[in-house]
This record gives sequence, structure tokens and C-alpha cells, in this order.
Amino acid sequence: MSPGVRLIDVDSSDEENLLEEGVRNRRSPRNEPTDFNIPATNDDDDDDVDPAFNLNRRSKEASQYESLDYDVCENVLWRRDQTKIKPKFTVRKDFSRWVISLQIGVCTALVACCINIVIEEVSRLKYGFLKRQVDANVLHGDLSIPYLYWSLLNLVPVVIGATLVAYVEPVAAGSGIPQVKCYLNGVKVPRIVRIKTLAVKAVGVATSVIGGLAGGKEGPMIHSGAVIAAGISQGKSTTFRRDLKILQHFRDDHEKRDFVVGGAAAGVAAAFGAPIGGILFSLEEAASFWNQSLIWRTFFASIISSFTLNIILSAYHGLSSFRYRGLFNLGEFAPLPFEYYELPIFMLMGVIGGCTGALWNALNSRLNMFRAHAIRQRWAKVLEAAFVAVLGATFACLMAYTINDCRPLGNDPTEQPVQLFCQDNEYNAAAALWFQTPEATVKALFHDPPGSHKILTLATFVLIYYPLSCVTYGLSVSLGIFIPTLLIGAAWGRLIASFTVLAFPTSIAFVSPGKYALIGAAAQLGGVVRMTLSLSVILLETTGNIGFILPIILTLMTAKWSGDYFNEGIYDTQIRTSRVPMLPWHVEPEYQNLSARHIMARPVVCVRTEEKVQYLLDILKNTTHNGFPVVEDGDDGSRVNGRLIGLILRSQLVVILKRSFYVESSRFWESTVSIEAFRDEYPRYPAVEDLHVNEYKRSGSFSVNMNMFMNPSPYSVEEGTSVPRIFQLFRALGLRHLVVVSSENRVRGIITRKDFLKHH
Amino acid sequence: MSPGVRLIDVDSSDEENLLEEGVRNRRSPRNEPTDFNIPATNDDDDDDVDPAFNLNRRSKEASQYESLDYDVCENVLWRRDQTKIKPKFTVRKDFSRWVISLQIGVCTALVACCINIVIEEVSRLKYGFLKRQVDANVLHGDLSIPYLYWSLLNLVPVVIGATLVAYVEPVAAGSGIPQVKCYLNGVKVPRIVRIKTLAVKAVGVATSVIGGLAGGKEGPMIHSGAVIAAGISQGKSTTFRRDLKILQHFRDDHEKRDFVVGGAAAGVAAAFGAPIGGILFSLEEAASFWNQSLIWRTFFASIISSFTLNIILSAYHGLSSFRYRGLFNLGEFAPLPFEYYELPIFMLMGVIGGCTGALWNALNSRLNMFRAHAIRQRWAKVLEAAFVAVLGATFACLMAYTINDCRPLGNDPTEQPVQLFCQDNEYNAAAALWFQTPEATVKALFHDPPGSHKILTLATFVLIYYPLSCVTYGLSVSLGIFIPTLLIGAAWGRLIASFTVLAFPTSIAFVSPGKYALIGAAAQLGGVVRMTLSLSVILLETTGNIGFILPIILTLMTAKWSGDYFNEGIYDTQIRTSRVPMLPWHVEPEYQNLSARHIMARPVVCVRTEEKVQYLLDILKNTTHNGFPVVEDGDDGSRVNGRLIGLILRSQLVVILKRSFYVESSRFWESTVSIEAFRDEYPRYPAVEDLHVNEYKRSGSFSVNMNMFMNPSPYSVEEGTSVPRIFQLFRALGLRHLVVVSSENRVRGIITRKDFLKHH
Repeated sequence: MSPGVRLIDVDSSDEENLLEEGVRNRRSPRNEPTDFNIPATNDDDDDDVDPAFNLNRRSKEASQYESLDYDVCENVLWRRDQTKIKPKFTVRKDFSRWVISLQIGVCTALVACCINIVIEEVSRLKYGFLKRQVDANVLHGDLSIPYLYWSLLNLVPVVIGATLVAYVEPVAAGSGIPQVKCYLNGVKVPRIVRIKTLAVKAVGVATSVIGGLAGGKEGPMIHSGAVIAAGISQGKSTTFRRDLKILQHFRDDHEKRDFVVGGAAAGVAAAFGAPIGGILFSLEEAASFWNQSLIWRTFFASIISSFTLNIILSAYHGLSSFRYRGLFNLGEFAPLPFEYYELPIFMLMGVIGGCTGALWNALNSRLNMFRAHAIRQRWAKVLEAAFVAVLGATFACLMAYTINDCRPLGNDPTEQPVQLFCQDNEYNAAAALWFQTPEATVKALFHDPPGSHKILTLATFVLIYYPLSCVTYGLSVSLGIFIPTLLIGAAWGRLIASFTVLAFPTSIAFVSPGKYALIGAAAQLGGVVRMTLSLSVILLETTGNIGFILPIILTLMTAKWSGDYFNEGIYDTQIRTSRVPMLPWHVEPEYQNLSARHIMARPVVCVRTEEKVQYLLDILKNTTHNGFPVVEDGDDGSRVNGRLIGLILRSQLVVILKRSFYVESSRFWESTVSIEAFRDEYPRYPAVEDLHVNEYKRSGSFSVNMNMFMNPSPYSVEEGTSVPRIFQLFRALGLRHLVVVSSENRVRGIITRKDFLKHH
Repeated sequence: MSPGVRLIDVDSSDEENLLEEGVRNRRSPRNEPTDFNIPATNDDDDDDVDPAFNLNRRSKEASQYESLDYDVCENVLWRRDQTKIKPKFTVRKDFSRWVISLQIGVCTALVACCINIVIEEVSRLKYGFLKRQVDANVLHGDLSIPYLYWSLLNLVPVVIGATLVAYVEPVAAGSGIPQVKCYLNGVKVPRIVRIKTLAVKAVGVATSVIGGLAGGKEGPMIHSGAVIAAGISQGKSTTFRRDLKILQHFRDDHEKRDFVVGGAAAGVAAAFGAPIGGILFSLEEAASFWNQSLIWRTFFASIISSFTLNIILSAYHGLSSFRYRGLFNLGEFAPLPFEYYELPIFMLMGVIGGCTGALWNALNSRLNMFRAHAIRQRWAKVLEAAFVAVLGATFACLMAYTINDCRPLGNDPTEQPVQLFCQDNEYNAAAALWFQTPEATVKALFHDPPGSHKILTLATFVLIYYPLSCVTYGLSVSLGIFIPTLLIGAAWGRLIASFTVLAFPTSIAFVSPGKYALIGAAAQLGGVVRMTLSLSVILLETTGNIGFILPIILTLMTAKWSGDYFNEGIYDTQIRTSRVPMLPWHVEPEYQNLSARHIMARPVVCVRTEEKVQYLLDILKNTTHNGFPVVEDGDDGSRVNGRLIGLILRSQLVVILKRSFYVESSRFWESTVSIEAFRDEYPRYPAVEDLHVNEYKRSGSFSVNMNMFMNPSPYSVEEGTSVPRIFQLFRALGLRHLVVVSSENRVRGIITRKDFLKHH
């Protein structure tokens, strides 16, 4: 057992005490009993802050999600590194940013193409086989054989995907959009941008869509883009344990996040063929960190992604001209004219979409909360996914077998029409909805000529698909909700068109079902995800009909407003229930009239400019804080009431200890130590338990001088500063720590992003 | 003569001295000789800062452009006001933000419609008349009569417009986009958002376009939107001297700027029918101040603007369906297919556009610098505009009369074909380019069938129009450069198509001249203005052809890159030459390795929490500073080395003095004084010279207590903080003043946005 671990064992009886009281520096030559806790009583205006609660809360929650550090630590090493930089290097660094953006675009598109081609080819085989089975068995009347085949063909891929997700990388479940949102907001979601996650996500989404689950591949594409961006920009991979020794200058949270913004945008561009939608998506989620050059690089990545995808898919499908603008193509609409008096109808549909979307969100989040309690074993998760896969096949067969909606062949672009009980030269429209991927069904609902479906068919379809998609989202599989939501919306939109024609037979001339399907889809999507701006542009770019932008925006806005009356969008709901400390756009109303002293955490564990190794090990082990203010000695030589002169991060201390950057050892290292030492460890710094510092070095003679490592100008505010003002600082600058000081610049407390979310 | 003015007169001999040394409080009971100047020698690490230079520079430049205060001053009055606010009021305030956005959209569209209809109708009359004159006189061979008519019809409106601009409101000259950019960046450009400016701009742009100048109405529309937004959101107007006593809560720079963002977006939406382009335009210029709710409100304003314009113009033109998406409509293109191997051609065109655009910018800015020196009298400016107007008519006639490019009637949608020397059933294609508004010509170049123009015609047109537009932009008239730039680009784009067909006759099948005209227009526009993202979207929305987005973006990006090699975009060039302190996106390289102490201005004029009226009057009169740090008394009771406890603005002090908020007068006012007093004066606070404070009040017994008025938590940084870090604070938070303090929180200096631009 190493000495480092032994220390904890020896003192473990004290540990509980230490956390409650603040840690004491027990082996320091000077005896400082009140060293880094300011007694709660020495301040007269803090009646509503309970320091013990603060410390507990912080140590409990802090272990789960950390913040990213968007702030650059401009310490001596960094400045030394900066002065070495020649103008030529700056140009090269900027140039390599563009090259990386290019690579992000290309790779995102490549991954998207692979997933897309696999899904398309396998699905065609699957549904072709099922159709032949139906055709072969319908004459004998024995329809259970195709049903069993169908169930099996759903079951096998879904089980593979669910197993991968449940056993290999649980964070790959779902669409990944909430996680990317959190990342862009500044929360470090563990393992979210690893290559392993990408692999599981890619295989998972292919198997789920092939397995016929009610989901799409678009959300996961956005997540894939983010992972690719993080991977390419760092030049190293933890999954493969490789370090290419390039791009070391981009190894900090700030640069990495900028690239992830581009990756997410490239993902949207690949998924929907919507480069502008991509940039707006990133904007809507990460608006506070933008600058013009980032906008242009992000745009570049999106364009390249969309372009590459276009070339590859066009080449694959043997076209000479570019046609495949995105994975998901709603098909070009002919110009859709609309009349003044249709606008209220569209708005009404927006309200319907908002309400049904809100209901969907509420049901889904209840269900997922139940799931989190009831289904905890991995095998149970796989089993659940398998059950839903068979459920889908069952409903599909029931609907196809029982509803006899026969339509003449030829009017409809359905690729593989199923005859079932229909006459020759006819096909079953109900079966057609199920015998293809959900994406193809959306396209069919948009473009099928009027009267392609009975009202009963569409109504049944909505009634089945709505709960089915609700159950599906939250399974342990990689799946997005764009497509199923569009599908539900398109179906009821078409239904409304049919009803309108029934009610006012004269309106048949202009009530085109495709138009209403599009509006319904927009309304449903707006009601579920509530992103107005980027969604409008995505739908615009996907349908290619700019003249129709006004109705789409109107619908999305009404849907958002009416949905917001009930609850939040599905992504925000998910983030809230998973207790991620994501900063909202505005400070919560209950914080409106508080000041820094009401929310800051106290006592603060501070360090002096020169600290003993033993003390540093102690504070690292006994607290979970990530930042320690560096103080000048106070009037009595203690750390209490010291003046703030810097801030040092846990990660820096860990590296310092690991590499033995001590004052007492021969000082030749001071000139050789460089910022590289810290970049090499980024982003997964060793845990303090893994540091092996021998007894000799812990003895009194070894200490660390912070001057070289600390951030010499940390952001700080005065105790009386209002919380909204502090919140704005956090949002605008992407802060992780903010030190609260007295008017004499003495440390009084510290604020982190979690302090804005106590009430949750 | 009032006592207030007399003081200056009496002391005027000292004034120069005072500015050099820092102001001394001469009538203070305590004699404090070093009161608010820190002697330059009492600091050991400031060898490279010359305080005299600093002070001089500040007092000289500060008078020209002030900054906006994006930071909310959270003083006691503000907090008192906040606590009075009930949740219901917050909802109402938020609701009224949306209502104002709605109004901004509607009004912007109304103004746009009026301008558009006037221009369209009058231009039709004008060119109809000219055509009849030509037809009547061509037979007699006497073409000087139509030329004289033409000159006159150009001259009269242009002289009216130029006179208005030169004599009434010079700030209304040009497109207004640079000014709006500065405003969004946080610079207060005087009179830029007044209603008088709007009126001059509206009349000016109509007369210039009618007068046949080489300019468009699109840029001015964006400026109009900004003015309308500023006007509506404040509920009062200086031009009309009206105060509607509503919306007082929006009377600060922060709220006003948010609305102006929406107004600019609404202007773009109205000008181009591009609501998404509008939001992206605002984003590209003001990205650092965004949050989600602002995005949505801006988007809402754009949509409403585009929608209103659509309804009105459609109604005006008697259409039942919406067709007029924007003032400027390039006409819907039929789907434009493009081939792989065309992309390099497009990129090459991008390079050409970038180079010619950069040349245009260089010529134009040289010309305007010459103009600023040579043409200073107002009448000279009017005369110059008149000269250019006649020049335009001359060139038009020369070209129409000499080039005999006859084409058969009917192939071409030209509205009023001119026959000139052509056969019956033919029209003169060269004359057609000139006998309509530039906008109509752009549309013609995009949509005329192949072979509508001789190569000679197009080449001559480009050679005339390029210098003509260059001379026109910078005249004392309201005009934008979008349309002339598009026109030049479209003409040479078409030319390239003709050359391609000449060189490779087989390519005639797919080289559509309209496609190349569009690419040429995009290239030229990208080369001149260098806005990639918003321009792509604007062109996309204007042409309605989403499938063509990739070539457009590719062209714009190449144009931007090759143009940036030579110089900046035209708007940035204009801003730079007018010496507006606009913050760039990144700190200039020469500041990279400096810290706060190198750029801060010293000595700082500070105030104590309780100050004599006389002292305040003195500092207001003898300095031009806009912010004064409030300090606790230093150790020796002086203001030197006092601890920073707040910041008070010049505008606040002026209002305090004007309304006599003194300590010594009966103190009942303390409960009645409210933030309204300050809002009432916003944004044009009285000059200190207009304050009439009688001798009695100046006497020792009257003083002002700052505690109630000062911002108690101003942003401050330590002396050693690096400039890039400070710059980021300024950009992210929209700061106006940043106090530099020592590690003991004592005031050492102050930084304003001008301190980042010393080298300019």
C-alpha cells in the first residue's frame, strides 16, 4: 500500500469531522486551528447561510457533474508560452483551426453516410423480405408467420443495440441532444465526447432504426458531430490511448468547446442538409460564447459537412448532380401557395401541436422517472427495449391486417406496396405506413396525392404511434425524436385536411393534404422540442420551399407558446430531471433580490503562495473543491482573511504534485517547466488517490510555490454584488469559479454554477 | 450670466493647467492639494505610461463619441424599484417587450412600403416619359432633348435629397449600416436614432433612387428599422419634444440597444424579405450581447416586418396571394442545377469578386478621404451630388445612343422596351439596362433568356457602372450599395457566361447566364461588404432557391477570403476612417502582451461618498470623464488611494445637481427620490454648463451623498490583469468603464473602450 493511500487509512476516523468543520492542516509547523474555515459567527450579515449545509451540498453534488473552464488561466507559464509565440505561429494556429473545421465537417458527413447507407440497405432487405412473406402467406390465411418474422427482425437488432448501450456505454442512450446542450452550456458530462461513445452511438442508432423502433437517426447525428469535433481537435484519444502529439495548443476547455460547437452544427447540417439550421441550432443553445470568427468557422464546418454528404450520397445513388442535401430529406415541395384565411387554421394547428407536444413531454418524463426507479438492472433495460420492439411489430401487424384501406396502385410513390387482402392492382395503404422506415413514411405523408388514406387509417396510426414513440424515447437505445414527432404531426395534419374537405367540400381545390401534413409536423415538433428559430430554418432547408416560411414560423411560434404554458421542451425537461447544473438563460426569480453573500459557499479553502506538500495533499483528499483561492498571508500570518491574489485549480495542483514541481528540490526545473506539462494531462487529470508522494517529500522541507501556476487575475466580486449581475458574469464569460471578496479584497466566499441552482 | 457659467469664466485662465495636472478641489474646506491626481511618480512599475498623454488624449477624443452603457447600474434606487416590482409586473414588462417588437416590425414595414411605392410609381412615370421623349425625338435624330429631360429629372430629386441631407441631418448620408454597426457595438453615434434622421433618410433615399443615382434603398431600410425601434421603445421623442410617459422601464442603453437589434433585423427583413437573414445580420454584428429571449424577439420582429410588407404590397398590387416577400425581390429562380466541375468556376468568380470588391473599397475610401478635405461646404456637397446625377444621365444616354444592341421583342420581360434605332418589333438592349431602376435591371440580368445582350453592351455597362457607383457612395445623399454592387456583379457574371459559351460552344446547354449572373452578384457583394453568413441567407431567401445554397456560400467565402487579403470590408473601412472607437472582435496584436497598468488612464478623478456641490461642479466642468469611481477616504483622509466602493456616472451627477438631491436640504426627499428622475432625463442629459446652481448652494454646507446613487458593484480588475482578458470583459459585458485597482482594492486607474484603440 502506498504512503499516499495509507494516510487516508490512518486518519479515516477523522474524515467525517474534517468535512463538517473544514479541513485543518494537521502537520503544518505552525499550528493554525482556524486555518481554512472562517467561523460562521464572525460575520454579522449572513443569517440565512448555513455553512455546513453549503459544504455538504457542494461535496455531495460536486462529484457528479463538473463545470468546464471557459476562462483561460493566464499564469506565468501561459504568458511565457505566449511570448514565445511568433506572429507566424498565430497565423498557423488560426489556419489549423480552419483545417480542423474542415476535417470535422468531412468526418461528420462520412459517419452520417455510413449510418445512412447501412440503415437504408438493410431496411430495404428487411421490408422486402417481410413483404414477400406476407404475399406468400396471405393466400393461406396464415398471417402469424410474417408476424413472427417481423417480431424477430425487430427483436434481434434492437437487442444488439440495447445491449451495447446498456453494457458498454450508457451515456450513448437517447438522442444525445440534451447532453450536447449541457456541454455547450459549460457542464462536463462524463464520457460524452469519447470515441467509444461515438462507436456505440453509431452502431446503436443503426440497429434501432433497422429494428423498427419509433425513432430517428437525426438527434444522434448531432451528438456524433460533437464527439468527432472533440476528438479531432485534441489530437489524442483516451479510448485508443493514443496521443498524436499535435494540436497541443487546443487542449483546453475553451478551444475544445469552440470546436464542439462546430461539430454540433456539422451534425445538424449532415442530418438535415441544413447548414444554416446547424449554425442556428448551435447559436440557440450556446449564444453567450459567440464571436464572429467562431460563427464563420462553425458555418464552414456545416457547409463542408453538408457538401461532403451530398457528394457521397449522390455518388452512391449514381446521380450526376447533387441531390442528397441531407440524410433526411422531406422531398422538394412544389411551391405551396397559401391564402390569408389559412393562417388562422395554421395557428390553430400550432396550438394543437403545442398541447399534444406538452402532453407528450409530460407523459414521457413521468414514464422515464418511473423507469429510473423500476428498471435499474442492465438486463432489465435490454429486456424492456426488446419488449417495445415486439410491441411495435404487433401494432403494425394488427393495423395492417385489420384495416382494409385499399388504394389503386400507381398514384402513390410507395416503393414496396403490400397487397394483403386487396384486389390485384391495389395495395393496402394502412400496411404501407408500416412497411418502411419512419422516414419514408413521413415523406409519403407529405407527398402522397390527396385521398391516399382513409380517415380511419390515419386516426388509428396517430393513436398507435403517439404512445409508442412516447414509450420508446427513454429506452436504453440510441434514438432521436425528430422523425417520430414529425410522423405523428404529419399524420394528424393530413387528418385535419381530410376533415376540412369533409366539412367544406368546396375547399377541396386548395386544401392540399401535403401542406397540412407539413404544418402538422411543424406544430408537433415545435410543441415537443420548442426550438423556434433553428427548427424553422431546418424545416425550410429540408423542404426547400422558402415561400412557405411564414406559415411554418407562425405555426412553430404558436406551438411553442401554447406548449410553454404547460411545461418545458423535452430536452430541458430531461436536463432538469437528470439534475445537471445547466445555467438557464435568466436567473431564477427567487434569486432576483439576493446578493453574493447569500449564495456563496463558505468557508473557503484557501492556499498561500507557498504551501507544504502535505497540506496540499490533505486539501485535495478531504475536499472536492475544484478551485482554491491563493491568498497573501493575513495580518496574523494565517490564511484566514488573506487578500486574494490568485486562483489555483485542483487539476493544476494534481499535476504539480505528480510532477514534483517543488521549491525545495533543485530549482533547475523552474526554467524547464512549461505549460505542456499541464496540457499533456488534459482532460483526464489523475485522481488524487493515484498520486504517490513518498513520506520524505511530504516532510516539512518540501513546498510548492503557487506564483508560477496560479491564475493571477481571477474574477472576483464584492460581497454586496447582486446575484443577477453575478449570473450575467457566469453566462457571459463561461466562468467556473468566482471569488467573493470584501471591500479590502479579502476572500469571503466562492461561487460556482451550482450555487444558482440550490432550489432545484 | 448665471453663476454656473461665471465660475468657468473666472477660472478660465487655470483651465488648461487643470486638465494637465488633474483638477484640484479649490474651494474645499479641507485643503487637499493631491486630491484627485495620483502623482505619476508614486508608482514604481508604470514607466511606459505617460499620464499627461493619457489625460490629453482622453479629453480630446472623448468629446466626439461616447460609449453606451450596457451595464445596469444597480444602485439603491434601482433596487428599491426592483423590490416594488410584483411578479405580475414582470410578466407585463415582458409582454410589452413583445408588443413593442410587434410594433417595430409593423412600422418598419410601413415605412418600407411607403418608400417603395413612391419610388416605384414615380420611376415608372419618369422612365415612361423619357421613353416617349426618345420615341418622339429619335425620328428627327435630335436626341439631345431626351438627354436634357433626363438630366433634369435626375437633377431635381437629387438636389432636393442632397440639400435635405447636407443642411438638415448630415448623419442621414450613406447607407447607415456602418452607423448601426457602431451602435450595436456600443458606440453612441450622435443623432443616429432620432426621428428627424429617419425622416431625412426616408425622403433622401426616395429622391436619390428616383434621381437615378447608382444606389439602392436596402441599406437605408436597415437604418430606418433601427431608428423606428429606438423611437417606439422609448415612448418619447426629442424631435417632437413629446414624452408619452409610457415605457419608462425601457429607458436605458441596455434595453434600447436590445430593441435596436430587433429594428435592424426588421429592416433587413423588410428590405430583402429575409427574416432569417435579418436575424443573422444582427447576429454577425452584435453577437456578444445575445441571449435566447432576445433572439426570439428579434426573430419575431423580422417575421412581422416581412409579413406586414408582404400583405401591404400584395394588396397594393391587387394579388390575392402573398408574393411580395421583400422590397427587393430577385425573382424566383427555377431550380438551378449545377455540376461538380462548375464549382471551381464559381470559386474563380469568387476570387474575381473579392479582388474587384477590394479595389472598389480602396478607390471609394481614397475618394471619400479626398472628399472630406476638399468638399466641406454644404453647397459644395449638394453641387457634387447634382454633378454625379447629371453624369449618370450622360453616361446612360451615351451608351444607349451609341451601342446598337437590337433584340427581338417578346423574349424578354423588360417592361418598357425602348426602340431607339432598332427595327420595329425590336428593342435596344443597351438602353433597356438604363431605362429603369437599378433594381429592375438586376432582375433583368438574372432572368433574361440567354443571348439577351451583346458582350460589348455588358462590358461597357460594367466599365461605366463600376466607377459610377464608386463615386456615388459617399455623396451627401441617402443611398445603399447593395443594389449597385449586385448590378455590377450580375453584369460581369453574365459576361463570363457569354465568354464560356464562346470558348466552349458545347457548354451552351447548361451555362445558364442567369445562374452566372447570380454567382457574379454574390461574388461582387461578398468582395465589397464581406458578410458571409447573413449575405448567404439573404441571397438564399431573396432568390428562393435553396438547392443553390452551396455555390452561393462557396462564392461568398472565396470572395471574402481574397478580399480580406487586400483590405477590410467597406463598412469597416468607413468606420475606421471616421475614427469611431468600435471594438474589433479580437484585441489588436500589439496589445497582446500588455496588462491593465499599461493601458489604463491615470490619474483618476475620484469622489468620496459625501462630496460638496462645488467640487462636483468643478469636476464636471473641468473634465470630460463619464464615470467617477467612488472611494472610501484613504488613510490620510484624502481621495488618493481610497478603496473602491462604487462608481457614479457623469449623467447621474448632472441629474443629482439639477434636481438638488443634497444632503443638507431637508431630507424628506430621500424617500421620494426615485429612479424615475434619472429615466426622465434619458438619453439626453443636460450639459453641465446648463446647470444653474446658485452661490448659496455651492457653499460648504451642501453636499451630495453618493450611497444612494452610485453603482455599488462596479466591475474592477487588478493592475496585472492582461489586456486580452480585459478586452473580453468589455466585449462580453458591454462595459463602458472598468476600474483598475491594486491588490488592496485601491483605485489605480480606469479603462474605457478608447484605451484599446490608442494605436489607431
